Amino acid sequence: MKALVLNSPLNLAVHDVPDPGEPGPGQVRVQVQSVGICGSDVHYYEHGRIGDFVLKSPMVLGHEAAGVVHQVGEGVESLSPGDLVAMEPGVPCGICTECKSGRYNLCRDVRFWATPPYDGALAEFVLHPAALTYRLPECMTSEEGALMEPLAVGVHACNRGGVRPGCVVAINGAGTIGCATLMTALAYGASKTIVADMIPARLERARRLGAEVLVDARSGSISEAAIHATGGRGADVGVECSGHPGGAQALVDAAAPAGRVVLVGMGPQPTQIDTVAAMVKEVDLATVFRYANAYPTAIELTSRGRTPVAQLVTDRFPFSNAVSAFEFARSPRPDTCKIMIDL
Amino acid sequence: MKALVLNSPLNLAVHDVPDPGEPGPGQVRVQVQSVGICGSDVHYYEHGRIGDFVLKSPMVLGHEAAGVVHQVGEGVESLSPGDLVAMEPGVPCGICTECKSGRYNLCRDVRFWATPPYDGALAEFVLHPAALTYRLPECMTSEEGALMEPLAVGVHACNRGGVRPGCVVAINGAGTIGCATLMTALAYGASKTIVADMIPARLERARRLGAEVLVDARSGSISEAAIHATGGRGADVGVECSGHPGGAQALVDAAAPAGRVVLVGMGPQPTQIDTVAAMVKEVDLATVFRYANAYPTAIELTSRGRTPVAQLVTDRFPFSNAVSAFEFARSPRPDTCKIMIDL
Amino acid sequence: MKALVLNSPLNLAVHDVPDPGEPGPGQVRVQVQSVGICGSDVHYYEHGRIGDFVLKSPMVLGHEAAGVVHQVGEGVESLSPGDLVAMEPGVPCGICTECKSGRYNLCRDVRFWATPPYDGALAEFVLHPAALTYRLPECMTSEEGALMEPLAVGVHACNRGGVRPGCVVAINGAGTIGCATLMTALAYGASKTIVADMIPARLERARRLGAEVLVDARSGSISEAAIHATGGRGADVGVECSGHPGGAQALVDAAAPAGRVVLVGMGPQPTQIDTVAAMVKEVDLATVFRYANAYPTAIELTSRGRTPVAQLVTDRFPFSNAVSAFEFARSPRPDTCKIMIDL
Amino acid sequence: MKALVLNSPLNLAVHDVPDPGEPGPGQVRVQVQSVGICGSDVHYYEHGRIGDFVLKSPMVLGHEAAGVVHQVGEGVESLSPGDLVAMEPGVPCGICTECKSGRYNLCRDVRFWATPPYDGALAEFVLHPAALTYRLPECMTSEEGALMEPLAVGVHACNRGGVRPGCVVAINGAGTIGCATLMTALAYGASKTIVADMIPARLERARRLGAEVLVDARSGSISEAAIHATGGRGADVGVECSGHPGGAQALVDAAAPAGRVVLVGMGPQPTQIDTVAAMVKEVDLATVFRYANAYPTAIELTSRGRTPVAQLVTDRFPFSNAVSAFEFARSPRPDTCKIMIDL
Repeated sequence: MKALVLNSPLNLAVHDVPDPGEPGPGQVRVQVQSVGICGSDVHYYEHGRIGDFVLKSPMVLGHEAAGVVHQVGEGVESLSPGDLVAMEPGVPCGICTECKSGRYNLCRDVRFWATPPYDGALAEFVLHPAALTYRLPECMTSEEGALMEPLAVGVHACNRGGVRPGCVVAINGAGTIGCATLMTALAYGASKTIVADMIPARLERARRLGAEVLVDARSGSISEAAIHATGGRGADVGVECSGHPGGAQALVDAAAPAGRVVLVGMGPQPTQIDTVAAMVKEVDLATVFRYANAYPTAIELTSRGRTPVAQLVTDRFPFSNAVSAFEFARSPRPDTCKIMIDL
Repeated sequence: MKALVLNSPLNLAVHDVPDPGEPGPGQVRVQVQSVGICGSDVHYYEHGRIGDFVLKSPMVLGHEAAGVVHQVGEGVESLSPGDLVAMEPGVPCGICTECKSGRYNLCRDVRFWATPPYDGALAEFVLHPAALTYRLPECMTSEEGALMEPLAVGVHACNRGGVRPGCVVAINGAGTIGCATLMTALAYGASKTIVADMIPARLERARRLGAEVLVDARSGSISEAAIHATGGRGADVGVECSGHPGGAQALVDAAAPAGRVVLVGMGPQPTQIDTVAAMVKEVDLATVFRYANAYPTAIELTSRGRTPVAQLVTDRFPFSNAVSAFEFARSPRPDTCKIMIDL
Repeated sequence: MKALVLNSPLNLAVHDVPDPGEPGPGQVRVQVQSVGICGSDVHYYEHGRIGDFVLKSPMVLGHEAAGVVHQVGEGVESLSPGDLVAMEPGVPCGICTECKSGRYNLCRDVRFWATPPYDGALAEFVLHPAALTYRLPECMTSEEGALMEPLAVGVHACNRGGVRPGCVVAINGAGTIGCATLMTALAYGASKTIVADMIPARLERARRLGAEVLVDARSGSISEAAIHATGGRGADVGVECSGHPGGAQALVDAAAPAGRVVLVGMGPQPTQIDTVAAMVKEVDLATVFRYANAYPTAIELTSRGRTPVAQLVTDRFPFSNAVSAFEFARSPRPDTCKIMIDL
Repeated sequence: MKALVLNSPLNLAVHDVPDPGEPGPGQVRVQVQSVGICGSDVHYYEHGRIGDFVLKSPMVLGHEAAGVVHQVGEGVESLSPGDLVAMEPGVPCGICTECKSGRYNLCRDVRFWATPPYDGALAEFVLHPAALTYRLPECMTSEEGALMEPLAVGVHACNRGGVRPGCVVAINGAGTIGCATLMTALAYGASKTIVADMIPARLERARRLGAEVLVDARSGSISEAAIHATGGRGADVGVECSGHPGGAQALVDAAAPAGRVVLVGMGPQPTQIDTVAAMVKEVDLATVFRYANAYPTAIELTSRGRTPVAQLVTDRFPFSNAVSAFEFARSPRPDTCKIMIDL
């Protein structure tokens, strides 16, 4: 079968690779239909590594994937051939302390698509555990299925931040993750949302998605905007999705007493935080690593029309042209949000 | 009556001041017996200000106080003259959003003893709301009553950090608050405790209180010690009580997956934190401002013998000699922990 | 001024009563505009008592009230004359253990409108603490303001049940509280809602409000419906709003593993529950008594159009005709939901 | 190898059965040393069934087991031959909704020792997943290891009840589970514990373990005792461990405002509960089914000397005499608590 293989930095091609074969017990074989390109894919493409994860041998890229069940393995009763499905890309061990306590995203032995040495999903077929493969309702498309991955990040961020009805939520950064967080926060009943970014096209997208207060970060301040929009009280929850060095501090300043700041975007380190400013308000900082138990909520919200993820797709490429998609991803238009590869 | 009045920085004296008079409805009049000196008292003594709180007119110092009920106001049924009591020094408004939701320490209108412009408790008599005045069991002394204030900080820190039985807890700093946190963590069932400080006499005190792993911070690292003591996993909870610039980061590095770091000590700002290091383990940072709903637990633990706060008192001064106590507090012995003034 | 006074059971009249006068410090004087009739008002009207609360002297009825600020007392900065406001009817002491910990609805000294011996709000003017008086946005009406009271019950029920996005929620009873809970659950992001009642007109109202599965309780079973609608898994949250003796058990049977059943409706006691059926799924039962910290969320949701409470008002009476309103309330039409008195 | 096989009700014998062989990947082979007899074992012995679980073919009994690692399977790094270990008897699937969210005790596909059709641990050797096999510190014995199973129930009950330092805890029933809960509650920092039972020898054991208030349930009432012991406020947490029909209601009556009642003991159904009495205090009822994530805490508490489980063992039988142990368990002495079989 064909797969998009990263051989070394900037050396990417659609290759023939061995077919993964029959699904084992508890597995499904899925014909991949849509795969979104994530910043981490582009980073591996350019640099061949992220932190300690280093490309040492050719690896298939892609971890935001949906497709159609082709075959089910022994014992799989929840899925049938022909089902449109989204696949959660990380497979945890299931038995370590983190897994047993419901924090399986922190499993040290997780095998995550397109994270060396594990192949990703930009291939014609993949095998995947049925338990991490979610049937999509008929109203959803394959592209929306692939978008469940970034939406799951938004869901997890809102869960960790304790977003609930009536909350004021400030979001720093309006890229894919910022928008996924914004959609989720609104679906969770957030009353007022404040979004900051430096790119006008992104702010305009956030506005269309329902953001009430928009901050052009080149000239304005999310903290001032949040304080102003709340009559001096501040935001109940802040979510840092920009990776900008000053983002965390801006959200601490934006926060209400007993507020929470959630860190999602990864930027250059160390981050400088005025912890005394956080302490006098008892503002907590929560961190996010991928997600756990978020796909079902993401799918439910999307199928109910509450998280219009399809609006995030700005560019599409056929699988045969996947290398061009990655080249485009390296220098996108200002209004580019999610690039989708259709298989 | 007599009170210890700070007229201006370094200008401190036991003065005659007006007697506070009869208790109003819901109030009690308390004859003060013991008052501990806190770092903030010393800071006002030396500098006349802490942050935005500036001494503008003479102010009575002291907020760690216990005494005997002298008279009860109308409607007070929970207390009687003669009761030995500890007094919670901050009086919240009771009706703002923070108060109504149980986070009354964040009340913007709190009146806190010895915080300008409010007088403190280093006086012969004080009036105080009965609802913030707690009767002490017979087994407790007046000094232990005064120590309920710093212990309440330790209780609140352990609550916010989610310390629970079986937890591994790392504590940076073994002064009064660090020791109060250590005692509380052990009383909460922490299994292993790791304590770091730069002063050997403080580490020795922590050892006597039950700390299992001691780290001389001049040569050792609390993060390495915590990782080593847990077979690589890390501490479930870290509590920063030193105010040292690197303390927060050291505890992030010390933390286990899904761990929590609680910030209690206030140091120079900004603090540098490698937030990516926190994110990959989903370590959260919780902050502490004073305490709420902590006195009952502090008293209960102490009366059961689980938090031997009396061991923290290293120096005593009579009220008549209170100015000397403050002078001593400015340059204490290495093994000085809590200085107590007896009225 | 005029007020609707219950002199003794079934002896009700609009009387002249003393004007409450000027607002004290922290209080506002409100000209009442809308008051909803609650089942408890009718119960006092008919029986002169509810449990231990017994009418011993004439009492003004009504506790679901909104109006316009007429005058503000000393220190009130959050409100101004002319503001349209909803008033939370219970005034807690603010300093007991329950109040300090955020559970002020459990304050033993709460003074609750129209609960002997405290007068209610069916009067031309009332004095009320500003802290429990909430300004309504311009888009809201006085009737909607009065309806914040039953909606607060729905909000509190959803909070205690942990309703969150993607939840399946089963609600027993589609009266005012059942509908308030339904609206809230949907606003909280509940995906699937199952509602049971014995009156078709009520089920029809629930359907219009967005309930997905309707159960005619005369012939059907909410537990079977919930199990069926979830492919065998059951409802994440059940809310008992009917007071029917079998309601709690039906919701236990309807519940998913780790589900929660919230008891709101009060019926004849004791209730029979198969606790082993609950235990094997670790289903918990949470109980609701009025509400705490719920008005802000109720107002926010309503002002955002997410909880269309105006749809609950089926009947209106002028204040001069208030006695007729109570007579009507004793034997309403099948489709009667909320009866509103306009002042 | 030898195993204690239940062929049919009351037909029990030590048989030769096939050796389980080599451990598979992630498994360990354990030489069993101590197995406690649980009420469920005796129930299967007498009746051949518990609810829907029916003995259809011969089954090995016993699920409270500890022993020594004999051999480790591929990939097992946490254990080595010779390690003394306790084994958690239920093996969940690891990938269903319940497992992924940390509630693995609710996994529908759990394989639990000595629950038809799965064999138990009263055998010379067993194979078990390493992830559910916990190494015991040197200070612990094999019998204590076997007792981690009932102690895990007490830990889980205290977790679900939110027992924390300073709590008042009322426990109905002082059998093995009641005593395990009592020990755990004290280790969690409970300040005052009230224990009721009908058998004086059991109350005496509870007293020795640290219970402060003892109630002879033949003449006294746990609710009156709890209310009295707390000056009218009531218990923060109640734990029903007796299975007595009136136990849940007694604990509701015993509860403080915002209290929690945890149901552990299974008795005849339905249970009658005055839910209005619970509602006016917002007392919640939590239920317990086995335990999850409790073994590490149980072992930690025991190794620290905080839960002296060894005191629960009142009777011992050699494996060769295991049938006599079960006969004795059917009609034990009044002071019998845990019966242990030594292999």
